[in-house]
Amino acid sequence: MTPHNSPDAKVSEARLRVRYAETDQMGVVYHSNFIIWFEVGRVELLRQLGYTYKEMEADGVVLPVVEVRCRYKSPAHYDDEITVRTKMQNLRGSLIQFGYELVRVSDGILVAEGETTHIVADTQMKRGTLPDKYLVPFQKAMGL
Amino acid sequence: MTPHNSPDAKVSEARLRVRYAETDQMGVVYHSNFIIWFEVGRVELLRQLGYTYKEMEADGVVLPVVEVRCRYKSPAHYDDEITVRTKMQNLRGSLIQFGYELVRVSDGILVAEGETTHIVADTQMKRGTLPDKYLVPFQKAMGL
Amino acid sequence: MTPHNSPDAKVSEARLRVRYAETDQMGVVYHSNFIIWFEVGRVELLRQLGYTYKEMEADGVVLPVVEVRCRYKSPAHYDDEITVRTKMQNLRGSLIQFGYELVRVSDGILVAEGETTHIVADTQMKRGTLPDKYLVPFQKAMGL
Amino acid sequence: MTPHNSPDAKVSEARLRVRYAETDQMGVVYHSNFIIWFEVGRVELLRQLGYTYKEMEADGVVLPVVEVRCRYKSPAHYDDEITVRTKMQNLRGSLIQFGYELVRVSDGILVAEGETTHIVADTQMKRGTLPDKYLVPFQKAMGL
Repeated sequence: MTPHNSPDAKVSEARLRVRYAETDQMGVVYHSNFIIWFEVGRVELLRQLGYTYKEMEADGVVLPVVEVRCRYKSPAHYDDEITVRTKMQNLRGSLIQFGYELVRVSDGILVAEGETTHIVADTQMKRGTLPDKYLVPFQKAMGL
Repeated sequence: MTPHNSPDAKVSEARLRVRYAETDQMGVVYHSNFIIWFEVGRVELLRQLGYTYKEMEADGVVLPVVEVRCRYKSPAHYDDEITVRTKMQNLRGSLIQFGYELVRVSDGILVAEGETTHIVADTQMKRGTLPDKYLVPFQKAMGL
Repeated sequence: MTPHNSPDAKVSEARLRVRYAETDQMGVVYHSNFIIWFEVGRVELLRQLGYTYKEMEADGVVLPVVEVRCRYKSPAHYDDEITVRTKMQNLRGSLIQFGYELVRVSDGILVAEGETTHIVADTQMKRGTLPDKYLVPFQKAMGL
Repeated sequence: MTPHNSPDAKVSEARLRVRYAETDQMGVVYHSNFIIWFEVGRVELLRQLGYTYKEMEADGVVLPVVEVRCRYKSPAHYDDEITVRTKMQNLRGSLIQFGYELVRVSDGILVAEGETTHIVADTQMKRGTLPDKYLVPFQKAMGL
């Protein structure tokens, strides 16, 4: 799935502060936490599209992850404030891809960037397609 | 609930190795992880009694935590091997209390000790009592 | 250490939103995460006293945890907004105790409450006492 | 960096059991935990090469992650036993790539696979190359 990076794609921003629990003995944020922060960003993008992921689940639509990629650019430290910039990068059939940038607020440094790919499924994990009520705002979010 | 420490109580042992992800920037294991290790020990005790917690859940019996206490005695470090010693300390009506000791394998040092208290509930979180199939081995585990 | 609950004690409030990663298969927040949220609250209280924990560490003052207690009152769910109310409950020699309440924003329900006890130490983990620059605002925070 | 998959590459195996804390409300293991399991596998591979990562750090050699990729094939569940199969896939200058397969023990199902790429650095995070004492066994591990 080639990312489709429309310049008109909506980019949401979520803000978080690094927790002590997220650091490791190298004195930086342990790398798996960035994947959790991606989720914080994804949830915020959905909220800005007018839907919470919670409502989607209650609606029988789930988005299990099928691929995660993360490129680490600069370490994040305890107590740093981080902005998670998220956009929908691709949407094709039952596949959705989100793209992320983690940026430190104090100096604008890019901490990491990555992508997650999801399938659209029902709560029995059977693959499906997005109902129109989600498809339309999702397409808009991609700048289509 | 006064802990009932029968000298005949069964003590299970589970072994784990400290993960890098579990350390923090102080160079030691972050303190909330010990609560997760308690669960590793609890699950092992149940297994040694002949039941997995997974089967109990499938049976409609869940044990949500109502209280956790942990006393930290000596730091644990990355790559340490830890033994989680667990026993059932009390069992009264719908309340169960487990006690734990975390011991470093290399030198026998006590890293932490604590207790968790649980209620017996059904999957709708309604409080109940243990079915006999669990009650009998649980009482035996307490040395009763 | 008997908690000293002055009615004049400063109470800080930190806000967080439950992450999907923090839930477990019972459909609620896994119980060890509340201990991490306590830390979020503690850090915020220090910040409101004019010091970040980061600065304290840089200053050679660390506060390793020696005891944690948490009582679970009502489950927290994915996407809930939670307020962490934190106060300094006791301060005696090299021991500091913080008290916490986790409250769901939407309905004001008490999700959990607890305490953490810390020793004042230097970065070599040798026990010490608080320098005046921290002691004075800490005492003020206790309403003394 | 094209993965170099020598058929003679050493594959280590580490065994773990899914913890309750690692599940989420979808009833499966939350996806960021697989990245932590990769680390469990990587540490085990190093140990089988005769070095612990702990000794490498004490030696002033650290391997910060610069990229993570994970492809999710089949969900893992609470209490599943998982084998982490790890091999060194590439080693060029200051870059090292490890490859991973997560396999459920009970049925041999592939749960996930992925790669992590690391740079060789000193404890000040300055990029370097591997000392011979590590380079030689690492090359052997690649089947070179």
